[in-house]
Amino acid sequence: MKKTLFFFLILMALAFTANAKNDVYPTNWWTGMKTNSVQLLIRSTENAFTSDNVRINYPGISILKTHQFSNKKYLAVDILIAPETLPGEIIIEVIQQGKKQKINWPIYKRRTGNGTEYAQGVNSADFIDLIMVDRFSNGDTTNDRIKGMRDQSLDRNQMYDRHGGDLQGVINNLDYLQGLGVTALWFTPIMENDMVNRTEHGYAITDHYKIDARYGGDEAYKKLSNNLHQRGMKLIFDAVYNHFGLYHFLEQDAPDNDWVHRWPEYTQTNYREQPLFDPYGAKSDQKKMSNGWFDKIMPDINQDNPYMANFLIQNCIWHVETFGIDGIRLDTYTYNDLNFANRCNAAIMNEFPKITIFGEIMVHGAANQAYFEQNTIDTSFKSNLPSVVDFQSLYYGIIPALTQPFGWTDGVNKLYYTLSSDFLSKNPMQKVLLLDNHDEPRFFSIVGENVEKQKMGFQWLLTCRGIPQLYYGSEVLVKGFKAPDGLVRSDFPGGWSTDTKNAFTGKGLTEDEKSTQDLVRKLANFRKTASAITTGKMMHYIPVEGLYVYFRYDEKQTIMCIMNTSETDKEIDFQKYNEITNGFNSAKNVVTDEVFSSLNKTTIPAMKMWILELNK
Amino acid sequence: MKKTLFFFLILMALAFTANAKNDVYPTNWWTGMKTNSVQLLIRSTENAFTSDNVRINYPGISILKTHQFSNKKYLAVDILIAPETLPGEIIIEVIQQGKKQKINWPIYKRRTGNGTEYAQGVNSADFIDLIMVDRFSNGDTTNDRIKGMRDQSLDRNQMYDRHGGDLQGVINNLDYLQGLGVTALWFTPIMENDMVNRTEHGYAITDHYKIDARYGGDEAYKKLSNNLHQRGMKLIFDAVYNHFGLYHFLEQDAPDNDWVHRWPEYTQTNYREQPLFDPYGAKSDQKKMSNGWFDKIMPDINQDNPYMANFLIQNCIWHVETFGIDGIRLDTYTYNDLNFANRCNAAIMNEFPKITIFGEIMVHGAANQAYFEQNTIDTSFKSNLPSVVDFQSLYYGIIPALTQPFGWTDGVNKLYYTLSSDFLSKNPMQKVLLLDNHDEPRFFSIVGENVEKQKMGFQWLLTCRGIPQLYYGSEVLVKGFKAPDGLVRSDFPGGWSTDTKNAFTGKGLTEDEKSTQDLVRKLANFRKTASAITTGKMMHYIPVEGLYVYFRYDEKQTIMCIMNTSETDKEIDFQKYNEITNGFNSAKNVVTDEVFSSLNKTTIPAMKMWILELNK
Repeated sequence: MKKTLFFFLILMALAFTANAKNDVYPTNWWTGMKTNSVQLLIRSTENAFTSDNVRINYPGISILKTHQFSNKKYLAVDILIAPETLPGEIIIEVIQQGKKQKINWPIYKRRTGNGTEYAQGVNSADFIDLIMVDRFSNGDTTNDRIKGMRDQSLDRNQMYDRHGGDLQGVINNLDYLQGLGVTALWFTPIMENDMVNRTEHGYAITDHYKIDARYGGDEAYKKLSNNLHQRGMKLIFDAVYNHFGLYHFLEQDAPDNDWVHRWPEYTQTNYREQPLFDPYGAKSDQKKMSNGWFDKIMPDINQDNPYMANFLIQNCIWHVETFGIDGIRLDTYTYNDLNFANRCNAAIMNEFPKITIFGEIMVHGAANQAYFEQNTIDTSFKSNLPSVVDFQSLYYGIIPALTQPFGWTDGVNKLYYTLSSDFLSKNPMQKVLLLDNHDEPRFFSIVGENVEKQKMGFQWLLTCRGIPQLYYGSEVLVKGFKAPDGLVRSDFPGGWSTDTKNAFTGKGLTEDEKSTQDLVRKLANFRKTASAITTGKMMHYIPVEGLYVYFRYDEKQTIMCIMNTSETDKEIDFQKYNEITNGFNSAKNVVTDEVFSSLNKTTIPAMKMWILELNK
Repeated sequence: MKKTLFFFLILMALAFTANAKNDVYPTNWWTGMKTNSVQLLIRSTENAFTSDNVRINYPGISILKTHQFSNKKYLAVDILIAPETLPGEIIIEVIQQGKKQKINWPIYKRRTGNGTEYAQGVNSADFIDLIMVDRFSNGDTTNDRIKGMRDQSLDRNQMYDRHGGDLQGVINNLDYLQGLGVTALWFTPIMENDMVNRTEHGYAITDHYKIDARYGGDEAYKKLSNNLHQRGMKLIFDAVYNHFGLYHFLEQDAPDNDWVHRWPEYTQTNYREQPLFDPYGAKSDQKKMSNGWFDKIMPDINQDNPYMANFLIQNCIWHVETFGIDGIRLDTYTYNDLNFANRCNAAIMNEFPKITIFGEIMVHGAANQAYFEQNTIDTSFKSNLPSVVDFQSLYYGIIPALTQPFGWTDGVNKLYYTLSSDFLSKNPMQKVLLLDNHDEPRFFSIVGENVEKQKMGFQWLLTCRGIPQLYYGSEVLVKGFKAPDGLVRSDFPGGWSTDTKNAFTGKGLTEDEKSTQDLVRKLANFRKTASAITTGKMMHYIPVEGLYVYFRYDEKQTIMCIMNTSETDKEIDFQKYNEITNGFNSAKNVVTDEVFSSLNKTTIPAMKMWILELNK
């Protein structure tokens, strides 16, 4: 009896070991990468690593070090991939439950065209469309619900249930997007969010190495990426390193207790950037800012943990290389450990020298924003972030310009003030301009559903310095507030087969929606070859009585942008601007094609914007 | 007949030459100055300099160069005063109307005590009172009107007529000012303003080398300066270099046409600082900002003219040395040619190494302000200005804190935001804090004549980082707006013998006025020896629901400042601040003397401020 039991247990153990599943992160690497030292995090879902004894017998691969965690289901193995290493399947021999175990891990040949076919960077010649994939178009109804995933919601009438949009829906409509003048797509994160609810936004990642099956998984994403590049379009990756979803395995089955920030009781971030640069900031405020949780369901990652940090940095490089990414948007940038963020940026830029990285710096004040990017300020911490989402020219720029009465520091003067603060910034031409996004009210709602103001907003967006970013659907006057309606994330009209209104085809659009869409299309396409805008300089004049005039210019082209934010018509005296208008004697409105056969005085109607290309 | 006429003319010419008046600027210099190269501007009111031939026969004095102007009544003579030169009367021999003419010019022995008895600088241990001399106290009624001067107005009921205040009035009340805790006096300019009207403010100077006779002239000013220094108090000079009064001899009888900026037609400055640093600024906007006139009666000085520039720089050094100045406030700083301003600052600091210079930077935005001072920003133009009047913590600080509902970026959060921007500035402890001045509404009027808010304002003023500045009379709730009443410049109560209310003695003051004055007196005197405030550090916490807590501290002292700007009582949990309150177990309110025998939780009433000195 005793003997039988013993053998039974042995058999059990053997069987168990044989079936044990081991995951390795990153899931693969490549030959030919500058980043040739990789830290493998091996996770066994079942068996403990009873030793840190690891062997790899593969030409060119050497083990640098190994590390065991308090949770013995994890093991870290640092390897070096020598330049001459050939692609292939590596066998990693580990000891689990006292027994040898073999784990396969592939090294591929890397992509060609780093900096040309992918990782090209985005710049001010681009026009980005920010899309929430769940809300854009349902191209494959079979993936609307995925068995086994926690969120089984599917109801387009519920703002925070899933709606069914997917990457195939985007692929199906690339003609529309490209026709509109869009050159780059940015999706809110599409990596697996296996959370209970509110999975529409994507920021609660539960697996950094898997595209969410509801969007079509890795294959759909690769297909989309290829399609974009074939069209000469670009792909932007929304990277989230401050937090992950509560159901991430690194939280549910953590290697150690310090991979996320723990607090005696739930402690939320204070959402205040100041303690990070404030000479008078309290340490406790600083700690709360950086280490407080963004939300109860999104643990705050401890980027001081070197294993956690490596996991994230390697994931970013892996993602770019795997899917052919051209630009990276870094989520909740100010909440990260900024030293980690610098290290991460440096690692990415080292591997992909031409890639663009822009951070979400949702702060208040030009100097506050500048602190987090490459700036002209001499501070003890120096950020290496090349670019930012320019919330300043939104909050303290185009919104007050079109919604506030003109005053010494109000109305369009705020926009003037904000742009003039660019002396704090190293790369103002790389700032990402926006009218709205998934966190902000739709611009059309902000301007009181005033179509002319929306059009002025777009004209500004597409001519001001920086990289313009559209939020899907705003081109056809999609409206909605963050609260209470939550409609800021509503569906793109025509993305579902049952939609009666279709913005892709124009079916059912009102005249206002059509004319706004036409304006965006015309201007965005004009812009593509307008060197004055895409690579030229900017000059602007102090606004007078609500009239704001700025120029985009280079040696080949001069474009005069006239924004009358007042309630009365305004005279334009071209002579006033003669340091730049000198020598020109006619102009053409690039939106309406109206021609000004002379540059004498003229009058712009109240609340109107003109974009005039000047001619000799 | 012919012969007689000839002799008559000769006699006339001789007589004329003999009586000719020649003024020399600077009116004297000193031995022992670092600035030993001086450019003398000689002005003859009658005769032309027919040659630039100049002789000086005085041991140690050599002529470097001479210069004639298109207006031959002027001659510039650059001299070098060798270190061994003895004081005495120099004879300058010039040629006027073809004849030799002798002009006397004295060199004095300079003052002792540069940096100790004068030119000491002001710092955050000081408490400045800004006084408009015409509106403070009439100590000598014989100088109320001066024969021959253009402005003969004298009516205390007219806001912009003269009221009769003078320096003797200030001297008479030094006990009051010193008792109040004031340590330094700053007057709006008191140099001659021989203008037709609106001479009360002093910014339209017509003679840089003469104290206005209506204030008591040079002698009264010297007496005041001596009195102040005997008391251990300091004197601040309001220097105006951007413009002068239209009736200045340099405009009425200009040496050349380019000593002020000329425009085809009257052109006012645009009052906008941005074109100076804005990467997109238009040159025409920049020119208008710097060279446009401040006002029709105040020509804009051309500081690019080296003779004009030297005249101003030498005047500043002369003024400091003549009157024993300790600090300099530079008027309309942003409107100056900034390169000139840098040169001027450097010259002053070279001669008086400990002197403090602070500029009037009336702009909107912390970065905008920082551009004009010593900052941490890497820009092509670098200002050497050590300090500024901190309009940011007024406009975007204490005013919204006490007048705006609390919001994410509103109310007291604005104050928090503004102070946290100090990372842009090299010397935040040297910023001059204010609640009001001669150009801004009285703070008591801004806060809706709410006595408690005025008291909160003063408590902030006297505890925040920087150098506090009082505006005469605000300590007894003097009120008034800039427009339409103009009462921002009304008289100090008790300054005139007929006044029924007397703030110097307390006679006729209301309880509110008395208690406010008492608060200022108590706190300003406490402050004098409170090292935590005068030389200590600052730490503040993110405001919560209108409750703003900051600390001033050093190794010897910790002071906790609690400002409840909300309409409800707020709990104070001292534990929250334990990174600084740790180890302390009692506190004393330094204004009310109330003692907190333990640092358990307590409650601060709505709209109240406490300044607690913590004890172990």
